[in-house]
Amino acid sequence: METYEILRDLAVIFISAKLFGLLARKCKAPMVVGEIVAGLIIGPCLLGIVQPSAFINQMAEIGVILIMFSAGLETNLQELKKSGLIALVIACVGVFVPLVAGSLLYMGFHGAASFGSEEFFKAVFTGSIMTATSVGITVEVLKELGYLKSRVGQTILSAAIIDDIIGIIVLTFVLGFKDPDSNPLLITGKVVLFLVLSVILGYIIYRIFKIYDEKHVHTRRIPIIAVSLCFIMAFVAEKYFGIADITGAYIAGIILCNVRDAEYIDRRVSINGYMFFAPMFFVGIGLKTSFETMSGEVILFAVGFVLVALLSKIIGCGAVAKVCRFNWGDSLKIGVGMMTRGEVALIITNKGLDLGIIDHSFSTAVILLIIVSSIATPMLLKYLFTHDKKEKAKS
Amino acid sequence: METYEILRDLAVIFISAKLFGLLARKCKAPMVVGEIVAGLIIGPCLLGIVQPSAFINQMAEIGVILIMFSAGLETNLQELKKSGLIALVIACVGVFVPLVAGSLLYMGFHGAASFGSEEFFKAVFTGSIMTATSVGITVEVLKELGYLKSRVGQTILSAAIIDDIIGIIVLTFVLGFKDPDSNPLLITGKVVLFLVLSVILGYIIYRIFKIYDEKHVHTRRIPIIAVSLCFIMAFVAEKYFGIADITGAYIAGIILCNVRDAEYIDRRVSINGYMFFAPMFFVGIGLKTSFETMSGEVILFAVGFVLVALLSKIIGCGAVAKVCRFNWGDSLKIGVGMMTRGEVALIITNKGLDLGIIDHSFSTAVILLIIVSSIATPMLLKYLFTHDKKEKAKS
Repeated sequence: METYEILRDLAVIFISAKLFGLLARKCKAPMVVGEIVAGLIIGPCLLGIVQPSAFINQMAEIGVILIMFSAGLETNLQELKKSGLIALVIACVGVFVPLVAGSLLYMGFHGAASFGSEEFFKAVFTGSIMTATSVGITVEVLKELGYLKSRVGQTILSAAIIDDIIGIIVLTFVLGFKDPDSNPLLITGKVVLFLVLSVILGYIIYRIFKIYDEKHVHTRRIPIIAVSLCFIMAFVAEKYFGIADITGAYIAGIILCNVRDAEYIDRRVSINGYMFFAPMFFVGIGLKTSFETMSGEVILFAVGFVLVALLSKIIGCGAVAKVCRFNWGDSLKIGVGMMTRGEVALIITNKGLDLGIIDHSFSTAVILLIIVSSIATPMLLKYLFTHDKKEKAKS
Repeated sequence: METYEILRDLAVIFISAKLFGLLARKCKAPMVVGEIVAGLIIGPCLLGIVQPSAFINQMAEIGVILIMFSAGLETNLQELKKSGLIALVIACVGVFVPLVAGSLLYMGFHGAASFGSEEFFKAVFTGSIMTATSVGITVEVLKELGYLKSRVGQTILSAAIIDDIIGIIVLTFVLGFKDPDSNPLLITGKVVLFLVLSVILGYIIYRIFKIYDEKHVHTRRIPIIAVSLCFIMAFVAEKYFGIADITGAYIAGIILCNVRDAEYIDRRVSINGYMFFAPMFFVGIGLKTSFETMSGEVILFAVGFVLVALLSKIIGCGAVAKVCRFNWGDSLKIGVGMMTRGEVALIITNKGLDLGIIDHSFSTAVILLIIVSSIATPMLLKYLFTHDKKEKAKS
């Protein structure tokens, strides 16, 4: 491919991503959904104007790294500590229930698998796709409804953030086991070492960066150094610890989330993200999706996948909230608020596709899950909050 | 190469580019010089930490496209018209003299070449590398000295802008002839058709974009659509007209330079540029440079190249200024102000390397030219302007 030919692909991707993103927003769906649909339409799945290529894959990889870095940067450690314990418990159960439910769903379709087998691994991976709530979508919905600062809103937010972290750790563990010849103890040791090193080195890096940042606040070099740090951590995580590069990027974001220029870095990264790299990621998902495998069983699996993913979150998180003395209505809201899935589910799916753990039929299921959850959540939350208000007005 | 391995290369490129860029600025040289040096140091030329790769090339290509798009967006058509005619004449002669002088220099080293031969083409290409004044460096120097708004300053600025346009047209013509089997008449026809279409379609696109922009001013979609337009024009120029993609990008910038959001688009593009793509371009130049060919003749050629490039601009532009009734001092200032070379010379060189017209020894000469001119120009201009002030104070 001549170098200039990538320009055509880029232009088609950018314009279609924006067009379908805006269309999705018109339909009250998140723009991400539109971007994936754009990929489906321009890709080999339908029109075939753009073919997946190494360059698009590499740009997409940078895109997802930047998304995770940005998510890390937006972490509010103080807030996290405040609504801490309850949110932590909700998040843990909210990860555990879908993980188990998803694994069982896979086994339901492919037969029971013995612990440690390849099939067992695939089952657990299926569950891990279901674990991570999409903080972005959740926050946006709560903001729109004006309940972000309510107790319920704060709990959902904190739980969603912790959920994200746990989800990524789960993914790291699961992906660490991908090599059947590897030693689980060694992998566990590596993960622990990585987390310990992240905390220690992270703290040192944070202190040094903070001092440097104070001296050079708001200069161009700050975001460049920050992004380089993110790339290095992502690279080191994957290369030397067998840990997903997105985990490294996310931790790099958390390390820097309290420096003075965190928001400035985030803004710079986001501008790059939304303009060049993030669309490549979401459109790329669509490009890679193939509907050739849309047999009856695939459709059945996709429907089952969506139902299990949604219900396991509502029931898991809702039940814990009830135990933690929220009333029934608020517990249900928390459960529903936690059921949105977005980028992270896509990222994990993509990772699985790259590694050959799952096949393209999963993309269909996950895209269906994201579309259904991100349309259903806002509508359900809106209903629950306004219904609640009316009840209170009556009494 | 695993996808995540590009992250390491990117981090090394970003950090070294920033480091050496800042170092260059400390030494009063443009940051661009530092970024090229960074590429020389980390590349196969010295340390060999980063090897040139397809991905780096493609990112660099996007980088130079964005640089030219930004230069187009910053074009001030009104200003251009005002100091118009004189600047136009200065620019034309300022392109013509180095073009001829550069061609003669090449023939001096490689023997006279008959019109239309491969060697003649290489000679003209050598001359065309010398044509384009770097607007960026010139503007920055004049700003620093506080003479940007003086008559001399305005004339230099306008001439430098026109010079850039003419330089690109010359490059387009020269590159259009790269295929010895092609029909010069057809190429000329294509170039004329391209320019005519650019004006007509450009005006239509401008009107439509203007209306759309007014409705959606300062929204995220504006820069995305603008950049997509730039990519499409770059692609179409190269693919269907055999015209350099950077020319298309530059014209796309000029088309949009008068819409309401031109500055907003430019800012968005620049943020992407300076963070991700532009460093890839400048560092990439260094990565591609090889000093293995540093024989005595190469050094001699490089020194001759620099001298001819600088003197031909000073003499060509200065003489025209004198004819246009500037006094001797101001004429000299205009000549010196026009002698800075930067991105565009690199871009043309890079183009020639990609197409196999010139060899890597040219990089050495061009890098030397940029370093010498961008250090000598500020110093000489400063001397001339302050010397002038003292003379006036005396009399």
